[in-house]
Amino acid sequence: MKILVINPNSDRAFTELIGEAARKAASPGTDILCESAPGAPAFIETSRDELLCAPGMMELVSRHGDADAFVIACTCDPNLDALREMAAGPVVGAGESSMLFALPLGARFSVIQTTEGSVQAKRELVRKYGLQDRCSSVRAIREHGEESLEERLLEAARLARDCDGAEVITLGCAGLAGLDTRLQKALGIPVIDGIAAGVRLAEALAAGGAFTSRRGKYKGS
Amino acid sequence: MKILVINPNSDRAFTELIGEAARKAASPGTDILCESAPGAPAFIETSRDELLCAPGMMELVSRHGDADAFVIACTCDPNLDALREMAAGPVVGAGESSMLFALPLGARFSVIQTTEGSVQAKRELVRKYGLQDRCSSVRAIREHGEESLEERLLEAARLARDCDGAEVITLGCAGLAGLDTRLQKALGIPVIDGIAAGVRLAEALAAGGAFTSRRGKYKGS
Amino acid sequence: MKILVINPNSDRAFTELIGEAARKAASPGTDILCESAPGAPAFIETSRDELLCAPGMMELVSRHGDADAFVIACTCDPNLDALREMAAGPVVGAGESSMLFALPLGARFSVIQTTEGSVQAKRELVRKYGLQDRCSSVRAIREHGEESLEERLLEAARLARDCDGAEVITLGCAGLAGLDTRLQKALGIPVIDGIAAGVRLAEALAAGGAFTSRRGKYKGS
Amino acid sequence: MKILVINPNSDRAFTELIGEAARKAASPGTDILCESAPGAPAFIETSRDELLCAPGMMELVSRHGDADAFVIACTCDPNLDALREMAAGPVVGAGESSMLFALPLGARFSVIQTTEGSVQAKRELVRKYGLQDRCSSVRAIREHGEESLEERLLEAARLARDCDGAEVITLGCAGLAGLDTRLQKALGIPVIDGIAAGVRLAEALAAGGAFTSRRGKYKGS
Amino acid sequence: MKILVINPNSDRAFTELIGEAARKAASPGTDILCESAPGAPAFIETSRDELLCAPGMMELVSRHGDADAFVIACTCDPNLDALREMAAGPVVGAGESSMLFALPLGARFSVIQTTEGSVQAKRELVRKYGLQDRCSSVRAIREHGEESLEERLLEAARLARDCDGAEVITLGCAGLAGLDTRLQKALGIPVIDGIAAGVRLAEALAAGGAFTSRRGKYKGS
Amino acid sequence: MKILVINPNSDRAFTELIGEAARKAASPGTDILCESAPGAPAFIETSRDELLCAPGMMELVSRHGDADAFVIACTCDPNLDALREMAAGPVVGAGESSMLFALPLGARFSVIQTTEGSVQAKRELVRKYGLQDRCSSVRAIREHGEESLEERLLEAARLARDCDGAEVITLGCAGLAGLDTRLQKALGIPVIDGIAAGVRLAEALAAGGAFTSRRGKYKGS
Repeated sequence: MKILVINPNSDRAFTELIGEAARKAASPGTDILCESAPGAPAFIETSRDELLCAPGMMELVSRHGDADAFVIACTCDPNLDALREMAAGPVVGAGESSMLFALPLGARFSVIQTTEGSVQAKRELVRKYGLQDRCSSVRAIREHGEESLEERLLEAARLARDCDGAEVITLGCAGLAGLDTRLQKALGIPVIDGIAAGVRLAEALAAGGAFTSRRGKYKGS
Repeated sequence: MKILVINPNSDRAFTELIGEAARKAASPGTDILCESAPGAPAFIETSRDELLCAPGMMELVSRHGDADAFVIACTCDPNLDALREMAAGPVVGAGESSMLFALPLGARFSVIQTTEGSVQAKRELVRKYGLQDRCSSVRAIREHGEESLEERLLEAARLARDCDGAEVITLGCAGLAGLDTRLQKALGIPVIDGIAAGVRLAEALAAGGAFTSRRGKYKGS
Repeated sequence: MKILVINPNSDRAFTELIGEAARKAASPGTDILCESAPGAPAFIETSRDELLCAPGMMELVSRHGDADAFVIACTCDPNLDALREMAAGPVVGAGESSMLFALPLGARFSVIQTTEGSVQAKRELVRKYGLQDRCSSVRAIREHGEESLEERLLEAARLARDCDGAEVITLGCAGLAGLDTRLQKALGIPVIDGIAAGVRLAEALAAGGAFTSRRGKYKGS
Repeated sequence: MKILVINPNSDRAFTELIGEAARKAASPGTDILCESAPGAPAFIETSRDELLCAPGMMELVSRHGDADAFVIACTCDPNLDALREMAAGPVVGAGESSMLFALPLGARFSVIQTTEGSVQAKRELVRKYGLQDRCSSVRAIREHGEESLEERLLEAARLARDCDGAEVITLGCAGLAGLDTRLQKALGIPVIDGIAAGVRLAEALAAGGAFTSRRGKYKGS
Repeated sequence: MKILVINPNSDRAFTELIGEAARKAASPGTDILCESAPGAPAFIETSRDELLCAPGMMELVSRHGDADAFVIACTCDPNLDALREMAAGPVVGAGESSMLFALPLGARFSVIQTTEGSVQAKRELVRKYGLQDRCSSVRAIREHGEESLEERLLEAARLARDCDGAEVITLGCAGLAGLDTRLQKALGIPVIDGIAAGVRLAEALAAGGAFTSRRGKYKGS
Repeated sequence: MKILVINPNSDRAFTELIGEAARKAASPGTDILCESAPGAPAFIETSRDELLCAPGMMELVSRHGDADAFVIACTCDPNLDALREMAAGPVVGAGESSMLFALPLGARFSVIQTTEGSVQAKRELVRKYGLQDRCSSVRAIREHGEESLEERLLEAARLARDCDGAEVITLGCAGLAGLDTRLQKALGIPVIDGIAAGVRLAEALAAGGAFTSRRGKYKGS
């Protein structure tokens, strides 16, 4: 099985980190191809950034049309609908996958974002997927402070767990791949990384020969 | 006051039709500038089409940055969030505007689409705006048949009124500008065209010096 | 164009304040007629007060039946449904208008009330309009304290912005007309006054010849 | 125990019918006082009619302030909030009561209205009470036809049961008191009359010394 | 009238406490039979505990099939759906009844639980009944501390009232029967005990000859 | 990896059918153990039946506590919460799994039930999982008729697709395992079988070392 993992941005270190996380999560027989969207900005912060990633992402899907499934390696799931229209195989987003895998593990999940400015967009993504009744909160870490990123993630996740009633945590940034295990140990509740979840969901869908419905929303093109 | 009306597609006849409708709806002192997004596809049918319109739409906003307000002249409101991030003045979508103006005129509105394939996307747009509790239905006209477009619109709108409980109709395609008055007469309930609504909403917002909030979702760039 | 601005209560100073705000917001060609409901109580605090305003409000609509549009100059929008049944032209509430104009300016709005006792009624108004998914909170100012009204409004609005995620503020009392600009400057996010919004929405609707649907809820009488 | 049953309209025959139904439903020790709102219109069809009933209804509550509980004998529950503010004892509406009693008897209830024009108002009442997830539909009977009222009620209730999935029927007009038993027999599912439900709910609340909360919405006056 | 009050657990002191509370709430002519489910665990804390109570609860319903109505004397309403299928007369849960009786007394109610671990299950019960829009919060008391149970209940209820906007409190544990009056006095807002509410709701339903609908969810067996 | 597939009922043919479907869906390295709940009824039709399956299901989980994951092989997901409390590894329901796998394949899914009497329970299951906004309908096949089960399933699924806007179909009965491929071919949209989905979801969760959160709802016992 061949899975194309698409890094929407053009940051090389990010692509490598993601590729490694994807390969670690994949089953023995799965071939992970991780590529960066050509021409995309280095970081995705705004809706405009997401649009600027679109041409490169669509090019990757065209170039690797033979992949059995596709993973968008950014938890804001940019341009997911368009890729679903184009690709023959199923397409999943890292954000979507982490939320779906959170559902059977606890009553409610919280998403931890690395910037305050991305909280509302993630809230709207949760609503787009119709999962608002299962989401206890979307929270951002404190952006400044002397503490490490990991410490601030832990702080935000603890608040989600203790104040918002989160039973499961999903990481709201694909660049946190790898931290899930350590955070999980410290928190005592499941922590889900979008890349690992995305790869496993893509595998599970492709294994069953699943395909995007061409009736209704994803008419294809 | 100067309002930029953006035709997301590259169809010239469409741009002219829209420009005319916009000017007809505008107040005496308003200067309407209606332009087509350079490089956009001729029609917008899919999510992918919407992405292909994005570069041209963003270019238009950059070029006419001095406009007091901006109207996206397509009722699927493509790339609205990104334009809001970029533009100094308020940005409204034709779809959004027609729904907002429907609210004070009746308890529930239905949207009439010209293709079955666009119904689900419009349903999701209604939900994105949080207006699902006020929307009686999204309905498509019969796509084939010997009847004229106007007759088929009337048929769908009647079903919305009589079966779904619609008290107001909004037209789900900007290319229907001008038909609203005739349909309204035939139906006996308010029918709202997105271009006219968009221009009037843009005027009303700009008159009060309104601006897009830079806190939260539309951080600006 | 002639717009009747209805002060539901009988407080003269309030009527003058509102009339001034309405005239300031109106377009050059608009004729604002601002009147107080005869026989109404001096203040509106309870549901009972709203009912006591009804006869006078209905009398005003009958007396000025030739107005092109009607604005209820109280953000709790008392007796809006009954006036819509009676009036030939469109009728908007100050509360409703401020919420509708908040929608295109940010993802979520908060309403600031001047009394704790009016918070739940405003929450229900938001739900009545089906806008609960766009409303971050309804908050009251601290009722007592040495600070000025403006300072306490600012305090509550800051809490809405920083704790509730409000991207836009609407003023939950028509008597605050005029404070919007100063609060907006201090907060850095859009602040919407119901009177100005009501007048502009009424103008925009009347300009397009809009009318209340007589199908369903507003049967007319 | 003394219960005041308030007929919001001024129709004498209606008052008698309601009084009889209330007495039939009441427990042995309950004293039913059924009065018509002085000065009210003969029928309630519009929001304006509801407002015209208000002064008389408030007068009745003032005059019989010693009642242990109050029932508004109209399933549109007019002016319920204001009466709750005024009365010392609990106040229930016939519409509200019939819906509350439907909840433990089946998964979803449908409301049957006697006029098409009252359907949307009843839908909004259901939403006001937050019961929309338990309501399968609000349906009106065919207004014209040679069949008796009872036959047309049966027809509408059957459609609610067989097409909308209603497991319980509530009668959407207080004037149908007495028909519940016959309809229930014909339909084979519970049918709830608002007057009987109102009296029993009022008794149950008053028996426990229940009172309207003065915190928040019903501040009292 | 004969009402079977079912204590789902096997704790004798609990059965006595509940029986006493039920008799105190019942009308003069009502015969209360309060029994413990044979073979049930002593306490109900988990979903598994609820299942372990099921055989005994079903046995009680079979044994006392002639009861006019049934009350499940635990506010988590265990196995309510199955008992409704089996019993000829109406079946109500203590949790359900307390929520239904809260509705006419205030705009929103909060439920106070005695353990943090039961909060999410109660939240889901509120949603199962479709009452989430009327529920201000589900809160647990502090589980540890030197204060008495009553003091900690009061503390949690005050927070619900002052921070969450609760206008009515329902007690989230049947074992608190009797505390409602004292808490109510201290809080100044209605406090509802599930046992008393359950008995009164059962009486009111049985008085009208109500029965569980056999159409749809509760097919009977 | 060892996965325990639990047939909640005691029908041997059913257990074999399910075991076969599970093995067909499993990855090469997965060991499927499929057992029937001892002492369970032969069929599950009512809530009472679900309770009668509970002791046997819990016994199976205790006996095979070393399994890496657990699948409840009935799309009504009976006793899922209790098994989650007990089992060390993740537990998924066939109904839940089929819905989760439907989400990335289309905008909305419909569930097809084999009996009218199970529709409302499935609707409530969808709501329990918070997926109501993604569910286009729950439909039953015609129970009687000369057509084969497959033909009647196809008929109901076509109505879901063409009238309700379903883009994906999930099979609402585990006994339909194996029909998914043929129905999918006939319908042209994805059709998901709960057993296959359950096994793949269990594998994906177990592969990542996922576990049920012990914070909040599933406290463990």
